[in-house]
Amino acid sequence: MSTRGNRQPPPLQVLEAIRAVVGPKGVYEGADSAPFLSEWRGRWPGEAALIVAPASTEEVADVIRICDAHNVAVTPQGGNTGLVGGQIPFGDEILLSLKRMRRIRQIEPLNNTMTVDAGVTLAEAQQAAHDADRLFPLSIGSEGSCQIGGVISTNAGGVNVLRYGNARDLVLGLEVVLPNGDIWNGLKRLRKDNTGYDLKQLMIGGEGTLGVVTGAVLKLFPQPAQKVTAFAGAASAKDAVALLSHAQNATGGGASSFELMSRRCIDFIVKHIPDTRDPLANAHPWYVLMEFSSGQASGLRDTVETMLANALDAGLINDAVIAESEAQTQMLWRMRHSISEAINGEGLGARHDVSVATSDIPAFLDEADAAVERLAPGARVVAFGHIGDGNVHYDVAPPEGADKNALDDKRSEIEAAVYDVIDAFDGSISAEHGVGRHRRDTLANRKNAVDLAMMRAIKTALDPKGIMNPGKML
Amino acid sequence: MSTRGNRQPPPLQVLEAIRAVVGPKGVYEGADSAPFLSEWRGRWPGEAALIVAPASTEEVADVIRICDAHNVAVTPQGGNTGLVGGQIPFGDEILLSLKRMRRIRQIEPLNNTMTVDAGVTLAEAQQAAHDADRLFPLSIGSEGSCQIGGVISTNAGGVNVLRYGNARDLVLGLEVVLPNGDIWNGLKRLRKDNTGYDLKQLMIGGEGTLGVVTGAVLKLFPQPAQKVTAFAGAASAKDAVALLSHAQNATGGGASSFELMSRRCIDFIVKHIPDTRDPLANAHPWYVLMEFSSGQASGLRDTVETMLANALDAGLINDAVIAESEAQTQMLWRMRHSISEAINGEGLGARHDVSVATSDIPAFLDEADAAVERLAPGARVVAFGHIGDGNVHYDVAPPEGADKNALDDKRSEIEAAVYDVIDAFDGSISAEHGVGRHRRDTLANRKNAVDLAMMRAIKTALDPKGIMNPGKML
Repeated sequence: MSTRGNRQPPPLQVLEAIRAVVGPKGVYEGADSAPFLSEWRGRWPGEAALIVAPASTEEVADVIRICDAHNVAVTPQGGNTGLVGGQIPFGDEILLSLKRMRRIRQIEPLNNTMTVDAGVTLAEAQQAAHDADRLFPLSIGSEGSCQIGGVISTNAGGVNVLRYGNARDLVLGLEVVLPNGDIWNGLKRLRKDNTGYDLKQLMIGGEGTLGVVTGAVLKLFPQPAQKVTAFAGAASAKDAVALLSHAQNATGGGASSFELMSRRCIDFIVKHIPDTRDPLANAHPWYVLMEFSSGQASGLRDTVETMLANALDAGLINDAVIAESEAQTQMLWRMRHSISEAINGEGLGARHDVSVATSDIPAFLDEADAAVERLAPGARVVAFGHIGDGNVHYDVAPPEGADKNALDDKRSEIEAAVYDVIDAFDGSISAEHGVGRHRRDTLANRKNAVDLAMMRAIKTALDPKGIMNPGKML
Repeated sequence: MSTRGNRQPPPLQVLEAIRAVVGPKGVYEGADSAPFLSEWRGRWPGEAALIVAPASTEEVADVIRICDAHNVAVTPQGGNTGLVGGQIPFGDEILLSLKRMRRIRQIEPLNNTMTVDAGVTLAEAQQAAHDADRLFPLSIGSEGSCQIGGVISTNAGGVNVLRYGNARDLVLGLEVVLPNGDIWNGLKRLRKDNTGYDLKQLMIGGEGTLGVVTGAVLKLFPQPAQKVTAFAGAASAKDAVALLSHAQNATGGGASSFELMSRRCIDFIVKHIPDTRDPLANAHPWYVLMEFSSGQASGLRDTVETMLANALDAGLINDAVIAESEAQTQMLWRMRHSISEAINGEGLGARHDVSVATSDIPAFLDEADAAVERLAPGARVVAFGHIGDGNVHYDVAPPEGADKNALDDKRSEIEAAVYDVIDAFDGSISAEHGVGRHRRDTLANRKNAVDLAMMRAIKTALDPKGIMNPGKML
């Protein structure tokens, strides 16, 4: 696929001008270019006219101004951990990495804010907050290498959304280099500001199609005083959903994570991930890994115990354990985070990152399972995700004993069938991973015409030459 | 002021076509028109070519399609409680009231969502949530008459922002009639949806300049199990800000409200509001009214008592009481909500609804006070607001003994001086009330050129004929 359109490969003198902006340290060539052009699973191998990493916002702006003047396309890239290829260029673009912009610019504990460069990794941001006796709650699997700019551009989610929201909810201000090279200084450290359209919202989740995020003001929170982690077995997904409501009412919204897993997750984990075992004595069709936190100094464990006892009495769950040590907590989370790896051990036929209303999860699962079974009898669905966010990671492995690649030629059909069910529930075909290259055509086919027309009008208004990350999302 | 520009008063046959859409019940004329054309304090008296209240989203769309075809401007109006004149037309517009769209469409407790028509009042929405054993936390003084559509279009704030956020944070989906009459169905009930630009964010706080909000999906929360209200006296605004950090750390972010008041607030309240008295034995320069809530069933009062005792020991406060009854809680909140009325008893020279970073509140107050004193010696500043949001209502009353209108001819100068200080702190000249007519020129003069250019590009892209609420905000 090419995005060249009416665009030509950038002339050499333009590339030279861009090199001059960033200097030799900011150019990556030859063997150094490989890490930028391939995402970690090897999909969407890319090419770029030039790979540069500016050292400052001003350098980013200088690069973009040159691109604007010469109609050269730009693909911004953070930690290159995205799952939909949004960060990988096709060939004629400048790849603009934020990796050299790594300053924590300011931490203000009294304002509960932190201002950072876009290239700071999520883990570094979490650590900086922790060092200031504060919490930056966003947490995702790739936090060691993903960067704040990418987290924002993809509106990342993760395991604490239930309590603290998505990236969108955790950003107070942004600094963005616009497609014409203007620096938009929206680095407000304010909780309230009603002076016009909230422009940063277009950049959050904008996948780099409207500008390059170079800095951000992030919200911080007090660290919770207590945490309690529990793991429960339930007879049905419906019971697991009802358990969330029960738990939130009993703890006044104390759940920070509420993770659903089907029995098959546990089977695959125990089989493929070393040093894991079933946390409960008997098998259950569904499981919930839940974490509660509280600002009060004591009493949370009692509250959670009572909540679980009442849930057992009410038949919402059939067994439960509370983690008795940090090691047990870590083990439960390690199991949760190894589900994808465990599925790879069986072969991944199709993968979906979808959402519906939380209350629709059970019906969605029933209908999607039936649709998959019709297309691929015996295929093994592995469903897990974040109940409180209505977000189901709905993966499909080949039938027992079949070749790992047995479903490869049915992948598109299975995806289409699952997305049809999602559409019927007015859900989302991309809950947290985004659109990028991977779902661009699907989005164009499935999003309604009014949405698409508005999105295109905004894109044209802010990036009239279409130089920002072409071929992604829209 | 006219917004006619190249627009002519709507021809009679166009008005007839609009009347036909809504029917006789949907047209307000003669004496019935007065409540729509004047806001409650009598500022910005307006005129309209026609006042209509459609009964459904389809009728709104039919009206707007006619307006689009004939280049007729439209001013949407909710409960007409806005403080900046955004809801009042100039003369050539159709005034489109949402007052007849009052259905609670759906409540889903398991999904913690509620779908409502735009014309539902905030109090009705709160009540409907309560009836479903849930909390819709947004709370503002005008909640009995303001409507959800207006709450959303102005991104309303209020006293619970610290814990639950502004209107923007409480909306999952929107239904909007666009300037061309298309109905945008963005009524998603999802917590996660990364399939393109988050279009609803432009409508939230958009002040009706990009479309007419006709319906919304609102977030609900578990009701807290305990609430504790306290009132403390402090020596300085700096101590009051430090108290918030201390209190949030001690309660793990348990504060839902944290309201600052200067001593003058108490003086004016006791003087002008019947049945009020100073809650503390001695006078203090500053006060904080705080409310904490928790999901645990017990222990919050002990936590708050310990927190206050430690704050006394640390010298952050000099006295404090905890409300011992619902009546005491109500009295404290009645005092907080009567500050504006109490100021009117002394004469209101100038009023500002500004925000800065929370940690900048003390320095902002020092500099603003000095600027006001230079311009109007003896003028009495009354400062109050929401510490956690950095939002200060900064009002200025005439000097002791002076005429109530003594500062009227200095109002513009005082406003400009206070806004200069706000700009120096990178704050906001409109924290929660919005821009509307009142601050349109101020915004154009003070907002940076990059912001304004982006806003105008978006306005032109989505409303190319400029028919949506002209003369407001932009």
